[in-house]
Amino acid sequence: MTDHKKVALLYAQDHQKQTLDKMKELIAIPSISTDPERKDDIQKAAEWLKKELSDLGMTKVEIFPTPRHPIVYAENLNAGKEAPTVLIYGHYDVQPEDPIDEWKSDPFTPTEVGEFLYARGSTDMKGQIIATFSAVEAILQTGELPVNIKFLIEGEEEIGGSYLEVFIKENKDLLACDFFLNPDTGMLGPDLPSITYALRGISYFELRIMGPKQDLHSGTYGGVIHNPAQVMTDLLSGLHDDQGRVTMKGFYDKVLPLEQEERDELSRLPLGDDHYIDQAGVSKLWGEEGYTSVERTGARPTLEINGLYSGFIDEGQKTVLPAYAMAKVSTRLVPDQDPDEIYELFKTYLAENAPDTVTWQLDKLAADHPSMSDRKSPWITAYIKAAETVWGKRPLFVRIGGSVPVVVHIQQILGVDAVNIGFGIPGGNLHGPNENVHLPTLYKGIEALVHFFFNLKQ
Amino acid sequence: MTDHKKVALLYAQDHQKQTLDKMKELIAIPSISTDPERKDDIQKAAEWLKKELSDLGMTKVEIFPTPRHPIVYAENLNAGKEAPTVLIYGHYDVQPEDPIDEWKSDPFTPTEVGEFLYARGSTDMKGQIIATFSAVEAILQTGELPVNIKFLIEGEEEIGGSYLEVFIKENKDLLACDFFLNPDTGMLGPDLPSITYALRGISYFELRIMGPKQDLHSGTYGGVIHNPAQVMTDLLSGLHDDQGRVTMKGFYDKVLPLEQEERDELSRLPLGDDHYIDQAGVSKLWGEEGYTSVERTGARPTLEINGLYSGFIDEGQKTVLPAYAMAKVSTRLVPDQDPDEIYELFKTYLAENAPDTVTWQLDKLAADHPSMSDRKSPWITAYIKAAETVWGKRPLFVRIGGSVPVVVHIQQILGVDAVNIGFGIPGGNLHGPNENVHLPTLYKGIEALVHFFFNLKQ
Repeated sequence: MTDHKKVALLYAQDHQKQTLDKMKELIAIPSISTDPERKDDIQKAAEWLKKELSDLGMTKVEIFPTPRHPIVYAENLNAGKEAPTVLIYGHYDVQPEDPIDEWKSDPFTPTEVGEFLYARGSTDMKGQIIATFSAVEAILQTGELPVNIKFLIEGEEEIGGSYLEVFIKENKDLLACDFFLNPDTGMLGPDLPSITYALRGISYFELRIMGPKQDLHSGTYGGVIHNPAQVMTDLLSGLHDDQGRVTMKGFYDKVLPLEQEERDELSRLPLGDDHYIDQAGVSKLWGEEGYTSVERTGARPTLEINGLYSGFIDEGQKTVLPAYAMAKVSTRLVPDQDPDEIYELFKTYLAENAPDTVTWQLDKLAADHPSMSDRKSPWITAYIKAAETVWGKRPLFVRIGGSVPVVVHIQQILGVDAVNIGFGIPGGNLHGPNENVHLPTLYKGIEALVHFFFNLKQ
Repeated sequence: MTDHKKVALLYAQDHQKQTLDKMKELIAIPSISTDPERKDDIQKAAEWLKKELSDLGMTKVEIFPTPRHPIVYAENLNAGKEAPTVLIYGHYDVQPEDPIDEWKSDPFTPTEVGEFLYARGSTDMKGQIIATFSAVEAILQTGELPVNIKFLIEGEEEIGGSYLEVFIKENKDLLACDFFLNPDTGMLGPDLPSITYALRGISYFELRIMGPKQDLHSGTYGGVIHNPAQVMTDLLSGLHDDQGRVTMKGFYDKVLPLEQEERDELSRLPLGDDHYIDQAGVSKLWGEEGYTSVERTGARPTLEINGLYSGFIDEGQKTVLPAYAMAKVSTRLVPDQDPDEIYELFKTYLAENAPDTVTWQLDKLAADHPSMSDRKSPWITAYIKAAETVWGKRPLFVRIGGSVPVVVHIQQILGVDAVNIGFGIPGGNLHGPNENVHLPTLYKGIEALVHFFFNLKQ
């Protein structure tokens, strides 16, 4: 271990109290991005970050306004052209505090209980932002950075339609880097360091089936009009076969097959069937034959009905034959599926299967590509080594079923790979009441980051 | 023709102006049964009927209060025990005037335009009530009634859950009769006298499919949880085969087959495919193979989805895997199907087809038996003869796809057959804006009723 690394680690350990105080300061600003009344708090959080980044030794710090909430950028490129450059992502906005009645302490008054700090944003992701700040500070206060560092911190992650994608496209040179560090994922347990190397993409649709020109009396017309709700159930039901597979022609054509080595890695995850049964409160699981639950949710594409509407849905009865039916349908995609191609496949399915007694319309509401990082990249290798040093064990490799658009956008626009990590653990209640962060794990995370940055140089 | 009948018919013809004035008086009372603020108008309408029935020669007239809106009863039994007794049904309540903006004249200010009178209730059914009054008055003002007459006029037809059924059960002796005259149906055209001899029954259900204990993230759980919306579409889709038949085992077991003679009668109706295509605004019809449109809507049982709900149905996207799905499903039934048996068949279908990954619940929201009148009964024979005299042609025999609970209740509780007629014609806009009645047809209807009452005696 270099002397500088040793000293930096000691600095980080000695300054846990300061780290905690910084977290509390940032968390106390209720920067809820969806609430127009919090616009001043959003601005305040951005300014706080700017000052903090300057104080800890970033050489250039700037706030970029966007049509909505500002983006904070900072850099320290003193490591020089020979050293790798890492772009660290963060978002300083948080979810609303709803349901407020279920909080045991004020959501914006950070409250320590045992090893946990309770507050909105403690895990998602102000705690993680401060962890990266503390790691960088520990190194800079004890010497020079071994790598070039850029920070990109947005205020619109918890809101639909972030301007970040546009910003990245318009600032490719500013953001140029060797790889992308996204500390917005998590760990599967306090002693289970984890690396998320794949995220599913999404294609989200609204399907409408149109029948009669207006709602009809089901007594007078029942028997001669093809009920759009019935057509909808026929079409949606036909999208799965009895092995749980999606029936759209060509749906699986571009799916990268799981190799045995990857299946072995995934089988290490502590996410057995019991986990899903407990979390969902169901008696039995369901899914595509031939795959484990972890594979089904992370490594296989799926199709879900997210919403369904037709006719009369209030209390009681109304004998209506509905004029139309609507469904929200989404597919989760894995490499190398393409959301736009899935849209075409869905249209083909409808063209081939919808009866000529109705008309239909398929609108695309969202399209994000799936993403995958090279598990053998030098960046991931550097994090594996860091995690092994801090936690004494090899990290778990995780595929996440959800979609994180920023990772895909940066991969696609800047052409670099991502390292997705994080120090939040299960039970952190992201987006829910009593959100919390496990402080000992977060402090270990800071040490892991110090190791990581030094490992990158080698 | 008897002298009395001749004189009565002349009286009716001479008093068309008085009939029209009476209609206008009754229509001007806005007796909307669903509007609590019209409670006084409901009472006023009942009192108006009581006075009118006394004036025209009923020997006993009474208003029976119910927990909601009163029932008006009247009788004149002077024809004696040898003569048949007819129970004439009516309802003095009307639909709300919505949408008020689309009315060309005030809904409760009866307005004559050409041969039509426009007003809420003009066809449904204050006009028809006055027609029966005018026929009875014409006979009573010129002699004695050839039959015993009872009137039963309720104020809750346009509202859910009428108390009439209870009233009939509790007053079987008072209402005892040889048959039941229901002037609340219509004619298929101004020169097409019609007799409705069959009404479909209904069984209305709410089906719930329950999956996870709460809405889940479709990215995290999509692939291992059986989506209740998907199960719902599978179950509903399975309820029809590709010949348009309902697949519940035993669904058709009790259906009376259509005989050729009845099919011939039904084929006379001016309700070809074009009629349904125009009315519904569809490009193509659909239905059970082997039957005409009139047969499908009137003489065959059907199953419709009346409503469908699951998950997120607002604008935009939400990646939810819903906790449950709900459907409103109803079957229209024909003799001799039993709505309670259909409930059992539906439960059996669900028990056999629902997967064990979800739970389900089937609630029965309504159950009314189908009804059919003997087309060769003396009562219908008497009306055929009356219609032939007035319109010069044999009436059409109509089966209606909707359900009219009062007809079934009276048939079942009092054990008598029904004669369902009426003098409203297509375009009368029942329940819609600009409701109207064709006065020349209504006046002919009064003459038909005079003939009918005399014919009954023979």
